[in-house]
Amino acid sequence: MVGARQSQRGPFITFEGGDGTGKSTHIARLAAHLRAAGHEVAVTREPGGSPGAEAIRELLVSGATERWSALAEALLVFAARADHLEKVINPARARGAVVLCDRFVDSTMAYQGAAGGLGEEKVRALRDLVVGADGPDLTIVLDAPGARGLERAQARGGDNRFEAKGEAYQARVQEAFRRIAAREPERCVVVDSSGPVDDVAHRIRTIVKERLGLG
Amino acid sequence: MVGARQSQRGPFITFEGGDGTGKSTHIARLAAHLRAAGHEVAVTREPGGSPGAEAIRELLVSGATERWSALAEALLVFAARADHLEKVINPARARGAVVLCDRFVDSTMAYQGAAGGLGEEKVRALRDLVVGADGPDLTIVLDAPGARGLERAQARGGDNRFEAKGEAYQARVQEAFRRIAAREPERCVVVDSSGPVDDVAHRIRTIVKERLGLG
Repeated sequence: MVGARQSQRGPFITFEGGDGTGKSTHIARLAAHLRAAGHEVAVTREPGGSPGAEAIRELLVSGATERWSALAEALLVFAARADHLEKVINPARARGAVVLCDRFVDSTMAYQGAAGGLGEEKVRALRDLVVGADGPDLTIVLDAPGARGLERAQARGGDNRFEAKGEAYQARVQEAFRRIAAREPERCVVVDSSGPVDDVAHRIRTIVKERLGLG
Repeated sequence: MVGARQSQRGPFITFEGGDGTGKSTHIARLAAHLRAAGHEVAVTREPGGSPGAEAIRELLVSGATERWSALAEALLVFAARADHLEKVINPARARGAVVLCDRFVDSTMAYQGAAGGLGEEKVRALRDLVVGADGPDLTIVLDAPGARGLERAQARGGDNRFEAKGEAYQARVQEAFRRIAAREPERCVVVDSSGPVDDVAHRIRTIVKERLGLG
């Protein structure tokens, strides 16, 4: 993964945002657009994305709301992430594919670090240990102002441990995403996803073209 | 856990060493001795020791030998450890109990850090993050020279992912335990466990009495 092939390493784009902000819809739209433009695209998600990581995901999404402390939860998320990077993301990038991932480190920062009370410092220590230089080139932060996101997730039948934590928690999550994006403008772009889907998809394609020259 | 009660916090003793070096035997012997002397004793083990940690243990001991990278494995072990500390070890110490634990951070250092190739630096970073000041007051490192340990574990029917890694791996593990103990003599004592069980148990009781004034 170093040396001569490094220059052809595929770009890594993550999608972040609270539940129901439209991440999976817009990942599918962008993947279709990039494939039509001739790119190999690998679509994946966290927590999960590799067989080992999916087994860890089961531990995270099942059981009582307070099953894990924020620290234990963050360690499980990063264990899954280490497996996902090693088995799926890095190999796809090494063969030149564009990787689109639904949630990555910023979600751990928002859910466990900020809303869960672990503190962003500990999440950064884990990020440095596990991700190092393998982080995303571009992060699209989807932001659906107000409580619409949670309503959408509930209408969809969402009832996992995170969605069960309530509206105040979801508001802290969305606020944390905005803060992270403001801190790293060279990597992150906030996109308001509350408008018509076609308009939002067009805005995302434009950003990907401008930032990475793709599509 | 801080303030007035801190001075009565129960001591924390860990037992380390390769498979089949006699850890569980000598933990049981020491527990019986300390209970007879009037102490409350909590006996536990890693990975595992709490319901959440036992669920993570299942992920670690099942599946193919190369299922997890050393990094993913270390993160899972520390996720289990965070849960174990929070739910079992720290509460027991807070009520004044002596905690005896079969394996702790030194095993992660030996198995994933040294023998698994992760490097001790990364294990130390995780230890600082997860364990902080909640580490053991005393560590008994059991050392059964030669390959006897592995033979004993195999005679017992041991066939988990770690025992399946072979003799060279087990030798690297035992060597790492000796190195860790040499580096922290104020915390660690190496005990040759290849002699008669009664003699070894007596030696351990003597160390616990001398170091912690217990028994």
